[in-house]
Amino acid sequence: MNHKNYMNLALEEAKKGAAEGGIPIGSVIVVDGDVIGSGHNKRIQEGSAVLHREMDALENAGRLKSAVYQSATLYTTLSPCPMCAGAILLYKIPRVVIGENRSFIGEEELLQKRGVEVIVLDDEKCRRIMAEFIEINPELWAEDIGE
Amino acid sequence: MNHKNYMNLALEEAKKGAAEGGIPIGSVIVVDGDVIGSGHNKRIQEGSAVLHREMDALENAGRLKSAVYQSATLYTTLSPCPMCAGAILLYKIPRVVIGENRSFIGEEELLQKRGVEVIVLDDEKCRRIMAEFIEINPELWAEDIGE
Repeated sequence: MNHKNYMNLALEEAKKGAAEGGIPIGSVIVVDGDVIGSGHNKRIQEGSAVLHREMDALENAGRLKSAVYQSATLYTTLSPCPMCAGAILLYKIPRVVIGENRSFIGEEELLQKRGVEVIVLDDEKCRRIMAEFIEINPELWAEDIGE
Repeated sequence: MNHKNYMNLALEEAKKGAAEGGIPIGSVIVVDGDVIGSGHNKRIQEGSAVLHREMDALENAGRLKSAVYQSATLYTTLSPCPMCAGAILLYKIPRVVIGENRSFIGEEELLQKRGVEVIVLDDEKCRRIMAEFIEINPELWAEDIGE
């Protein structure tokens, strides 16, 4: 599969989140072509301050050997915040594919500076789902990014 | 209360983790003198890849207004890893008090560069509990820091 296909799986996660009344951001973690973890933002559904999509995907992947993370690609519909970027650095995930970074620009520069490959797809579907959410729920969105 | 007293509360959390068979690192979040969240590393107890002590403390504090985080001090028995440092940056927590950084040196420099006040107590009890754990469980410790 190519990046677009995996991003569509992350987008499916985002839609799952939206269907639950949550913030529509999704993520999948891929190793050797297989999705080993997927997740979406759980702030609203679980009252969670830490389960951003990447964190939820990491949590759902479970406890893994470091070598697994180090051969993974993380797909996320939106540019990763400092917490999620930090998790990527902690586990030395070498490649991050981002759906879009127009709604929010996260720590792409820090990731690149630390040697992580960052690919931005500028995907229109990823942009649309965030833009719609932010327009309707500006306060929830501000909360999610600590503003 | 002074830093030492709050650090003792974080250390109590670390001991709680140890009593559960977990990695003995604890954290408390303090606002206006009150502890609003406390937690400890849950890797072993809950098979969690994301609930480091600071993350667990943030999660236990629940969803908070940004102004609350922005007046908080986070106490952690050990120097914060990239993920936890990222969470501190996400929520704009202005001050972090660290029990010790000899067992592990985390992202103190990044935090300072972004304007976070970092205070290291070099507390002997914090050092001892980590040194004992790492000596007996080197593999679990390596897993927790992504190595």
